Amino acid sequence: MGERAVVLLSGGLDSATVAAIALAQGRTLTALSFDYGQRHRYELEAAREVASALGILDHRVVQLGLSSIGGSALTADLPVPKDALGQAGIPVTYVPARNTVFLSVGLGLCEVVGAFELYFGANALDYSGYPDCRPAFVQAFEALANVATKAAAEGRGHFRIHAPLMEMSKAQIIQRGTELGLDYGLTHSCYDPPSRTLHCGHCDACQLRRRGFLEAGIADPTHYAS
Amino acid sequence: MGERAVVLLSGGLDSATVAAIALAQGRTLTALSFDYGQRHRYELEAAREVASALGILDHRVVQLGLSSIGGSALTADLPVPKDALGQAGIPVTYVPARNTVFLSVGLGLCEVVGAFELYFGANALDYSGYPDCRPAFVQAFEALANVATKAAAEGRGHFRIHAPLMEMSKAQIIQRGTELGLDYGLTHSCYDPPSRTLHCGHCDACQLRRRGFLEAGIADPTHYAS
Repeated sequence: MGERAVVLLSGGLDSATVAAIALAQGRTLTALSFDYGQRHRYELEAAREVASALGILDHRVVQLGLSSIGGSALTADLPVPKDALGQAGIPVTYVPARNTVFLSVGLGLCEVVGAFELYFGANALDYSGYPDCRPAFVQAFEALANVATKAAAEGRGHFRIHAPLMEMSKAQIIQRGTELGLDYGLTHSCYDPPSRTLHCGHCDACQLRRRGFLEAGIADPTHYAS
Repeated sequence: MGERAVVLLSGGLDSATVAAIALAQGRTLTALSFDYGQRHRYELEAAREVASALGILDHRVVQLGLSSIGGSALTADLPVPKDALGQAGIPVTYVPARNTVFLSVGLGLCEVVGAFELYFGANALDYSGYPDCRPAFVQAFEALANVATKAAAEGRGHFRIHAPLMEMSKAQIIQRGTELGLDYGLTHSCYDPPSRTLHCGHCDACQLRRRGFLEAGIADPTHYAS
């Protein structure tokens, strides 16, 4: 049994790949998903199916009432942009401080299960303009983790935040997951999904996903509405 | 109308004092409380009454399912220690990464309401052994805030994390709040309260509160069960 780690598992393509990479590195994983009032709640079903397919026995889903602070097209009543990839600026699908909140809860879970390794799917290339997906953010969070916690305060270990996809293109991510035997048909990326089995095909997440399979030269198992 | 700020308001003595201090500094406040499965949920009622008494019009309560990760006597089914103040080590009432999670959500709320000032009641002297109540933690979080957010990424401002109680004793905190006209009878500190109007008198929080009023030479409005 490898060293224990926590992985943030959204049910999307990236986090599923991160989980597969951590398992390949010999970690024993606890997966953590969030029910935060997201429009695209099908991803929680996807997270459960991915965890099960990867043999992750410990999967926690934490409720976060982020919709009560609003501010994002993913949680509030704003339209999800379509065919808008590459437009300047940070898109309205940005959820305020989302990765900071998710990593914070992940850090708490690390303390509870005795892990010092925390994995998540931040990606600086295909990051769609989100500030909390960059190396400087990961470094700052790692520094915080090592002064914020009982485990670190008591000298029982040093936290490391792993973002193994940071420098990879979507195509490289898909290639790596495919090598590891990951079934991407289980994953869910769409921000505005017509159903669990259907992707809209036009939100930023769908466009990145579609293009990723194309560039990887790997058959895309996704069903797009159009 | 002063500069907008967010204050973490638990309903306890410390955070109520922080809110009064921020108002005295001329801030326009949004108060943020958490419903995180805490045993001492009476503090949420206290938070509402404190916000109302201070004239804070915008008060958000965010649900956090921290009990699903467990690990603390404040959220899990562990007994709250009594008459244990001063014992070595970090107490079991420590909630894993709680302040990190709370500040992260507070940071998100700052982004939504357009604030760059975030206040909370961390205190290094009476902190009962919690690692996330120290200056190094506050500094690390401020560094994180300034790389984590859309507002900072777009150069619209610089986040500051304010912990005005950091170097104050409980007696000094009570003296300051009393000068500012705060009604401590509305606040709730007890970790294991018999009722909204009664404090147990023996958990760490009650012992610190009781001693604080005594040392401040100010009449204690609290009703203790024993």
